[in-house]
Amino acid sequence: MKNITLIGSGNVATHLGLALKKNGFNIKQVYSKVLKNAEKLSLILEAEAINKLEKLTDSDLTILSVSDNAIETILKNIKDRPIVHTSGYTGINIFNKKFNNCGVIYPLQTLNKEVSLEFSETPLCIEANNPIFEKKITKLAYSISKHIIALDSEKRKSIHIAAVFASNFTNHMLSIAYDLLKEKNIDFSILLPLVNQSIKKIKNNNPKDVQTGPAKRKDINIINHHVHDIKNTRIKKIYKTITDSIIKASE
Amino acid sequence: MKNITLIGSGNVATHLGLALKKNGFNIKQVYSKVLKNAEKLSLILEAEAINKLEKLTDSDLTILSVSDNAIETILKNIKDRPIVHTSGYTGINIFNKKFNNCGVIYPLQTLNKEVSLEFSETPLCIEANNPIFEKKITKLAYSISKHIIALDSEKRKSIHIAAVFASNFTNHMLSIAYDLLKEKNIDFSILLPLVNQSIKKIKNNNPKDVQTGPAKRKDINIINHHVHDIKNTRIKKIYKTITDSIIKASE
Repeated sequence: MKNITLIGSGNVATHLGLALKKNGFNIKQVYSKVLKNAEKLSLILEAEAINKLEKLTDSDLTILSVSDNAIETILKNIKDRPIVHTSGYTGINIFNKKFNNCGVIYPLQTLNKEVSLEFSETPLCIEANNPIFEKKITKLAYSISKHIIALDSEKRKSIHIAAVFASNFTNHMLSIAYDLLKEKNIDFSILLPLVNQSIKKIKNNNPKDVQTGPAKRKDINIINHHVHDIKNTRIKKIYKTITDSIIKASE
Repeated sequence: MKNITLIGSGNVATHLGLALKKNGFNIKQVYSKVLKNAEKLSLILEAEAINKLEKLTDSDLTILSVSDNAIETILKNIKDRPIVHTSGYTGINIFNKKFNNCGVIYPLQTLNKEVSLEFSETPLCIEANNPIFEKKITKLAYSISKHIIALDSEKRKSIHIAAVFASNFTNHMLSIAYDLLKEKNIDFSILLPLVNQSIKKIKNNNPKDVQTGPAKRKDINIINHHVHDIKNTRIKKIYKTITDSIIKASE
């Protein structure tokens, strides 16, 4: 596998494309329904930009990195070719019998176009419809990452939900902390040692065993004060819901 | 300030005591209403263990590290002596006029007795009722930490709430992720590169600007599937509440 087609130009397509390019693969074409987006990514990857699926030329592997809603439509509109999607949620069964060699390469990572990262540290979860194709995409995966995991669609789905909690939701908690401090003109960086230690300690512990704070202590007095002090109703609701959950989970 | 009295034997008292001891201070006495707890900490700190406030002897500084609910009762039962509490939430006004030199040293950190940490990285938020005492406790604080911040009770309160989101609540999100994976016999460590990157990227960005995931994309289809797949009603409620909040915050 040497020549790659990218369908999609979002966060995942961008990081996968960059990692492949960096490791000697040739990105032939980048498709996006918005030509401008295809062109933007093509420029970096030295690929051809297209916005019509009819213009797809042959390649060794097509990587379909589009929103889950768009996968099915695109599959309907392309012919059989070696192909993987990159979704955590969508199963391998989305590929109908038309595709002889199909699978999944799901990067278990939070990817933003604008934020660089060491891609080789990103676990890639692999699934394929046949052992030969699995071997091929596993080889490709190993050339861009150190962590390759063979995983069926059912387990990948569970990991995807867990990842929402571990990444998207933690990020939202930090976003709320940022906003609460900004209201009082306090720089968010004051919290960084706390955030660092919070993450450091879960590397060797079940997070539940190192939970701290008013909810863990069932300190109803402080909890009530906090609820009173938070003026934003959206944030107040989150405070209450998570506090309740920590209390229940400790019981 | 050389001789220190510790009132309390919990997570904060333990880490403060250890940091002070390590940096040449003499911990004279450790008080806990449960003698066994006082003894446990005293043993490490080479201090006298007491469980009666009448047994307190003079010292240069008393550090009151007990739950917020217990602060007032203890203050009522001891005489004037140089004293600080370590609470993020309780104001300096909890000290009545009886105390000529009083203040706050609030470690902005998640502290567990069982989890070691580099204490010198912990920001210490300082407040005092007079400039001379403030200078004295600031000097003491600098001998155990690199990050000292003078902060009034009002701002400290805001930081305390933000810290609940940034640490206690992120930890709970990770705890849920842990449980979801455990159900499927998947090791939590698979998420660590994701967690690392999630934290790394907020060091240089407003967390809101690097939010990813189905809620951020308003991918209602995936969100509905996730809600359906999560069987535990407590976790389902958290999923919905935070997802709603991410969507609203993006608007």
